[in-house]
Amino acid sequence: MASKPWGGRFGEKTDRRVEQFTESISFDRRLFEHDIRASIAHAEMLAHVGLITHDECQQIVRGLSDIRAEIEADQFEFVLEREDVHMHVEAALIDRLGDVGRKLHTARSRNDQVATDVKLWVRDGLDRIGARLTDLQRALVDAAERHREVILPGYTHLQRAQPVLAPHYFLAYVEKFARDRDRLTDTRRRLNVLPLGAAALAGTTLPIDRDHVAKALGFEGVAANSMDVSSDRDFALESVFDLTMIAEHLSGWAEEWVLWSTQEFSFLALPDAICTGSSIMPQKKNPDVLELIRGRTARVIGALNTLLVLIKGLPLAYNRDLQEDKEPIFDAFDTVEACLELAAVVVAGATLRADRIAERLDEGFLDATTLMEYLISQGVPQRSAHEVIGHLVSLCEQKGCRRLVDLPDDDFAKAHPNLGPGVKSVLGVANAVKAFRSHGSTAPDQVEKQLAAWKTRLLPSSGS
Amino acid sequence: MASKPWGGRFGEKTDRRVEQFTESISFDRRLFEHDIRASIAHAEMLAHVGLITHDECQQIVRGLSDIRAEIEADQFEFVLEREDVHMHVEAALIDRLGDVGRKLHTARSRNDQVATDVKLWVRDGLDRIGARLTDLQRALVDAAERHREVILPGYTHLQRAQPVLAPHYFLAYVEKFARDRDRLTDTRRRLNVLPLGAAALAGTTLPIDRDHVAKALGFEGVAANSMDVSSDRDFALESVFDLTMIAEHLSGWAEEWVLWSTQEFSFLALPDAICTGSSIMPQKKNPDVLELIRGRTARVIGALNTLLVLIKGLPLAYNRDLQEDKEPIFDAFDTVEACLELAAVVVAGATLRADRIAERLDEGFLDATTLMEYLISQGVPQRSAHEVIGHLVSLCEQKGCRRLVDLPDDDFAKAHPNLGPGVKSVLGVANAVKAFRSHGSTAPDQVEKQLAAWKTRLLPSSGS
Amino acid sequence: MASKPWGGRFGEKTDRRVEQFTESISFDRRLFEHDIRASIAHAEMLAHVGLITHDECQQIVRGLSDIRAEIEADQFEFVLEREDVHMHVEAALIDRLGDVGRKLHTARSRNDQVATDVKLWVRDGLDRIGARLTDLQRALVDAAERHREVILPGYTHLQRAQPVLAPHYFLAYVEKFARDRDRLTDTRRRLNVLPLGAAALAGTTLPIDRDHVAKALGFEGVAANSMDVSSDRDFALESVFDLTMIAEHLSGWAEEWVLWSTQEFSFLALPDAICTGSSIMPQKKNPDVLELIRGRTARVIGALNTLLVLIKGLPLAYNRDLQEDKEPIFDAFDTVEACLELAAVVVAGATLRADRIAERLDEGFLDATTLMEYLISQGVPQRSAHEVIGHLVSLCEQKGCRRLVDLPDDDFAKAHPNLGPGVKSVLGVANAVKAFRSHGSTAPDQVEKQLAAWKTRLLPSSGS
Amino acid sequence: MASKPWGGRFGEKTDRRVEQFTESISFDRRLFEHDIRASIAHAEMLAHVGLITHDECQQIVRGLSDIRAEIEADQFEFVLEREDVHMHVEAALIDRLGDVGRKLHTARSRNDQVATDVKLWVRDGLDRIGARLTDLQRALVDAAERHREVILPGYTHLQRAQPVLAPHYFLAYVEKFARDRDRLTDTRRRLNVLPLGAAALAGTTLPIDRDHVAKALGFEGVAANSMDVSSDRDFALESVFDLTMIAEHLSGWAEEWVLWSTQEFSFLALPDAICTGSSIMPQKKNPDVLELIRGRTARVIGALNTLLVLIKGLPLAYNRDLQEDKEPIFDAFDTVEACLELAAVVVAGATLRADRIAERLDEGFLDATTLMEYLISQGVPQRSAHEVIGHLVSLCEQKGCRRLVDLPDDDFAKAHPNLGPGVKSVLGVANAVKAFRSHGSTAPDQVEKQLAAWKTRLLPSSGS
Repeated sequence: MASKPWGGRFGEKTDRRVEQFTESISFDRRLFEHDIRASIAHAEMLAHVGLITHDECQQIVRGLSDIRAEIEADQFEFVLEREDVHMHVEAALIDRLGDVGRKLHTARSRNDQVATDVKLWVRDGLDRIGARLTDLQRALVDAAERHREVILPGYTHLQRAQPVLAPHYFLAYVEKFARDRDRLTDTRRRLNVLPLGAAALAGTTLPIDRDHVAKALGFEGVAANSMDVSSDRDFALESVFDLTMIAEHLSGWAEEWVLWSTQEFSFLALPDAICTGSSIMPQKKNPDVLELIRGRTARVIGALNTLLVLIKGLPLAYNRDLQEDKEPIFDAFDTVEACLELAAVVVAGATLRADRIAERLDEGFLDATTLMEYLISQGVPQRSAHEVIGHLVSLCEQKGCRRLVDLPDDDFAKAHPNLGPGVKSVLGVANAVKAFRSHGSTAPDQVEKQLAAWKTRLLPSSGS
Repeated sequence: MASKPWGGRFGEKTDRRVEQFTESISFDRRLFEHDIRASIAHAEMLAHVGLITHDECQQIVRGLSDIRAEIEADQFEFVLEREDVHMHVEAALIDRLGDVGRKLHTARSRNDQVATDVKLWVRDGLDRIGARLTDLQRALVDAAERHREVILPGYTHLQRAQPVLAPHYFLAYVEKFARDRDRLTDTRRRLNVLPLGAAALAGTTLPIDRDHVAKALGFEGVAANSMDVSSDRDFALESVFDLTMIAEHLSGWAEEWVLWSTQEFSFLALPDAICTGSSIMPQKKNPDVLELIRGRTARVIGALNTLLVLIKGLPLAYNRDLQEDKEPIFDAFDTVEACLELAAVVVAGATLRADRIAERLDEGFLDATTLMEYLISQGVPQRSAHEVIGHLVSLCEQKGCRRLVDLPDDDFAKAHPNLGPGVKSVLGVANAVKAFRSHGSTAPDQVEKQLAAWKTRLLPSSGS
Repeated sequence: MASKPWGGRFGEKTDRRVEQFTESISFDRRLFEHDIRASIAHAEMLAHVGLITHDECQQIVRGLSDIRAEIEADQFEFVLEREDVHMHVEAALIDRLGDVGRKLHTARSRNDQVATDVKLWVRDGLDRIGARLTDLQRALVDAAERHREVILPGYTHLQRAQPVLAPHYFLAYVEKFARDRDRLTDTRRRLNVLPLGAAALAGTTLPIDRDHVAKALGFEGVAANSMDVSSDRDFALESVFDLTMIAEHLSGWAEEWVLWSTQEFSFLALPDAICTGSSIMPQKKNPDVLELIRGRTARVIGALNTLLVLIKGLPLAYNRDLQEDKEPIFDAFDTVEACLELAAVVVAGATLRADRIAERLDEGFLDATTLMEYLISQGVPQRSAHEVIGHLVSLCEQKGCRRLVDLPDDDFAKAHPNLGPGVKSVLGVANAVKAFRSHGSTAPDQVEKQLAAWKTRLLPSSGS
Repeated sequence: MASKPWGGRFGEKTDRRVEQFTESISFDRRLFEHDIRASIAHAEMLAHVGLITHDECQQIVRGLSDIRAEIEADQFEFVLEREDVHMHVEAALIDRLGDVGRKLHTARSRNDQVATDVKLWVRDGLDRIGARLTDLQRALVDAAERHREVILPGYTHLQRAQPVLAPHYFLAYVEKFARDRDRLTDTRRRLNVLPLGAAALAGTTLPIDRDHVAKALGFEGVAANSMDVSSDRDFALESVFDLTMIAEHLSGWAEEWVLWSTQEFSFLALPDAICTGSSIMPQKKNPDVLELIRGRTARVIGALNTLLVLIKGLPLAYNRDLQEDKEPIFDAFDTVEACLELAAVVVAGATLRADRIAERLDEGFLDATTLMEYLISQGVPQRSAHEVIGHLVSLCEQKGCRRLVDLPDDDFAKAHPNLGPGVKSVLGVANAVKAFRSHGSTAPDQVEKQLAAWKTRLLPSSGS
């Protein structure tokens, strides 16, 4: 009954339906490269401490490299009975090397092996996502530069609020993605501790050298407690949370650009190449990529939720439930990576329709707050100034004036003695934008400074 | 630019990355059978109302049948550019039939087509799950019969509470799965309304006959409002919720049996064929199937969550986000179907270890409540009786008695005058079980009646 | 140590921090009315079967009624040590009646008592929500009537698609809420089975009559398996799922109306009384109620998720984790009830800005599909017709025509021989709407029929 | 109509139902201290830059301090119409100071004010949680010391796997909580950037000094982009995620201890003071605190999910949906803080039942892996050694031997020539534990080193 590597004590063959239900090879095969990388480091350590000979080690390393090449060339046969990628690789090694292959699993368990492989995969994933974030930030900074002169209506409650410079708008997202990158860095640091050597859950009686393995695999430390690390999936949850935050940021932006693409807003021109049509309505041109980026946030949140539910209430140490961690991890990374890539494509391809935006810029009284602050700067208490301007807006609506500047001087004077004819010099959206001055505001010089700073920080050489 | 069926108004080819990002053929191809079934019904209706000729209809039906056969035989080529299964089938038809094929999409949109296909798929899925539930219920009833004589400790707070008959235990789950089946029935009824004919969102100006299609496809009605139905995914969410409830029920049972399989409980013997071993620890025999059933609940909850997040905040009518509904739907159905199948395998294969259970049955004072009720039946107020017995238990622990019956008569008498020597006839787990009498309780006659009733209800002919 | 009703076997007082951590009186006190109702039914049954005398029963009923009155009058003292509402009521009864009060808990456990109370509360909640749904449906039907003549642009992908009648739009939501009510009805039926009598988990040895209690409390049946029902929270999860579906429907509508309230859409006029302003920007008038309805969907989804996570992996029967079910249940009911109430307020108060909508109705080529169907009806295959019209739209954009009707006859003729001068009679949004004819479409007669049907169905007397 | 501070442009009074639906004072009043702290810093800055006089500033500071004292003394009246805590405090100030009070809101918006207040509250919360984590770690280290000599069976798949020292077990959780604290530190650093000065979304035209405010409030930086920060809730989501991870760790531990408290495991003695009883079963003593800690994980996951759903798809900048962030934030902090406190109480009060554990320690073949490694160390390949020992375990089960050491020498010799009589010196759980040697393993010297290190790191003075 030893066709399974753990079959010694078993008297019956595994039920075929059970094999199908418990297999993970259909999705964990993509770990093969990391599994082999970790096995090579493990074998070299075994030789280093004398648990295998250097010749055995060389055979193992060569064998593993050959298997890797076979898998890469799609010439490797995966079969259900061999459960997972780890068993496949080891069994193929034993097929090649016999007893020497049977030594590879010395002083390790699948538990610490899987944890190590997944950590390596996730670490690479974090690095890839970090690079994609930088690409997207660069696309946003480019867009900021391309639309330097555009004034946008800023919104709160999706109601027109105050005017903002387009670069200020683009840089808002650059800031969000900067926090995302910062989170990835923290997660990577916390992840970068080697599980291998924890064996099943208690360590081993064999004289292994975990630091040797850590060094070979680029880990900055070695897990201090075997029971902890063999049950630990913090790194997976934290990574997927980081991805969820990225997805959240993308979803808000995508929603916004779906709105901006409507006939009603008409803020945005998207090239045909990134839109699709309708099977029935000949005139349709739909911003599908944006909708899908928004929609895919749901599956990333779903993946995080799956992982949180999965882990909840599991006692120490490894439980088979944990096999279920891989698919949501892979899916979250794949989804967010693709969304980031496409977001950069869209940002690079999109153009603000400056004329259409400008046409309606004087709707919504975007200068009302500036006028209020004009009063405040003359000593009128904020609450009183707010009320005065509120009445003027109300008056505009009664009189059918679209802009405050269209009210007769008289109405201003009646509203408040400080609102003399001079007010007209501070009214209008262009004036309103120029009036800003606070740090971090949409004041033109502030925005220029931020833009310049981001251009430097995102230089390829800056490694940021 | 008309290589896309919606390409008339487009001046640029779709970006390859956009095609990759927006395609759904990689996962919606499994709808092919339902898509073709619905298209045949649609074509027959078009002929019925004269929008195509009967000859054209026959060509279309034959063409679609051929395409179905090709896909089934794995001889159909799927390509990224054709986006989804619907476009693949239609394009293949046009390749075969030219202009006749170009008529199939008359008076329909992908929106109502997809909604119809997915409903058909989900309806089949609900039927499959219903059958699996029945199988599992039968396995539980069989297990109830096989373990008719076994008395189990019942638990609350995972502390031993009162004794229960094993069949009572098994039938508790039969009840839960009965509610699950009941929910499926309601969902199926609510789902069974035809979307096709809603076209893009507003219906069509062409003289279609929706009842004709509904009848052909087994729908019991026709959607009354085109804007509603083209945005409606209630049936998907409700189905996945039903699946989630099944997964919840399975998860509790699996957790219980994981506990029962421990060395400490030793309640359960699982055959080797449904367990697996450890790569490092030679003695291990693990209940992996149970752990995976428990763990996979997480992904079903995750799928439901994904769908709920996806739908939230979408305005009418169709939005491309909705493409993301298919993968969680498929995954939830596949997962729960497999879990139900394996649960039935495990239930059929498992045996309660009657001797080991019996050995420790007198631990935990399982008869304490019976003794309390003995006092109550003599007129002692419940709260007073509760306190009296509580003190006796406490006395047992001080004296190191494992069972109430081991206390000297004297202690009973001192505790309460009504606790004469007669108490010993109501003490002990076997006596306690026999004493039950309320409807729905673990009283032997009650349990027999329930068992008999379920056997009848689950007869293959009963159609339940 | 018997200050706690379960204190008989305990040798130490409960730690104060533990009391604080485990109490539920701070949130379950709102069950008091249902707890007392169920206790009265229980006492009457106890008298009916002779477990207490009729006189004792009368004392208990009177005592409980007094306690209810005290709580209603806010004259009842709640204290941490008494844990939950059930203990409070019982302890107050014992304070009043002594030994007679001590008999109330005969043949029941807190487990089945709580399950019964919560079911009663949820059942009332479902009825309340059902009534609120009807109110909202009525408000929507009223709005449909008030805006009978308005034509709206219908959207897919938030791009203008085809024209729809405003009543068709309003009735789409009436349909959604009808499914919601249908779900509540199913849930109520499934819930309406009495738990009481399951006692701790195994039933009781005392001669209770569960049907007597069921009848008194309006339950249609009695739970058949004590272990099942004492662990069963299906009714809670299913109810909260139903609420989640309502919240989802509300969220889409709210999102839509937030958009419609923008300066850019200007479809909707909301009265000042349901908007709020900004603390800084004097001109702002924000649709806060809509945003909050949209936002509160999140907490209902969160409540459902909490419950699903809570239940997962719990073995039979009662576990203390289940205490945590109440707050999410209450919160979901409260939230959805308030959202439904306010939604009806908003629908009743809002007016479509017919003039503003009409002004831009000819943007977006809403008649393109009608024109395509005009070609189809002349025998042109759909795919060919689609392409022809797609080119015409493209031509319009090149020529700067906003409407198809603005193209010279010549362009039509060149595009397709069937597009003679007659086309102009089918172009234009008004013509397009009138052209619809399919069942469930926005065709004026279809919409009138639906509107009339809903008015009848929602008549107060119809009880629907 | 200016009874609302934003009422200038409004012509109608707010609907009472709308006030009730939109109010947040019922839950955000707990921000009062942070709101006042931030307002004082704001006023001092306004004076510093000359927007108000120093005398006005002093009046404001005094006024705010008085209001704080009133609220603390529960002498402050909260009313629905004043919406939220910010409006309450400001209105109370205006009541006291008139026009001077009306100046406080100069150059700020509720948007940046709320963001600042919530950040301050969350920052305090993170510090509190960090301290609670340290307390729990200390309790675990104490328990490790108290149970230095106890050997536990270690589990994988909840099956007995290998022996571990109790201190090794306790330190596994210390490691998990160390990662949790590390996460809090990162989150705090990322959070610690001042929003105030972003005003509504675009900054202000008034000459404010944001660094002045940042310094006064302990922020390490000032937000660089006003649109970003006024829509940013990353800090809330990240904090609640950190809390969720803590809850996950607690849930696994609680599950484990619920198991350990069963009759079947009997590993753990919990004092009466932290257990509760049953209303019906006199003998019950339930580990409610552990069950509730496990169960409350669900609400923390639910809170995180609520926040993720809430934020998804919101365009820039502030939307009223965000008001809904506070309750889940508060609830997650309160829940996790209470769970951590009680976990420390339980850890401090619990005792491992060394005798009961020792009694059954030779069940489950905990030394099988050690024996396998004994073979490996003699050059037998791991896979072969695994199979040999697997057969021996199987032989034990056939022969009814509970321990490997009970097999006759002959069986060992037949199994493998290297299994001479010497094997008995490496068999047995005590020998097995002593044999471990790898870094991070349960080897006694490794565990001592870790224990000593943690004692030092957790010294009160170490500030860790």
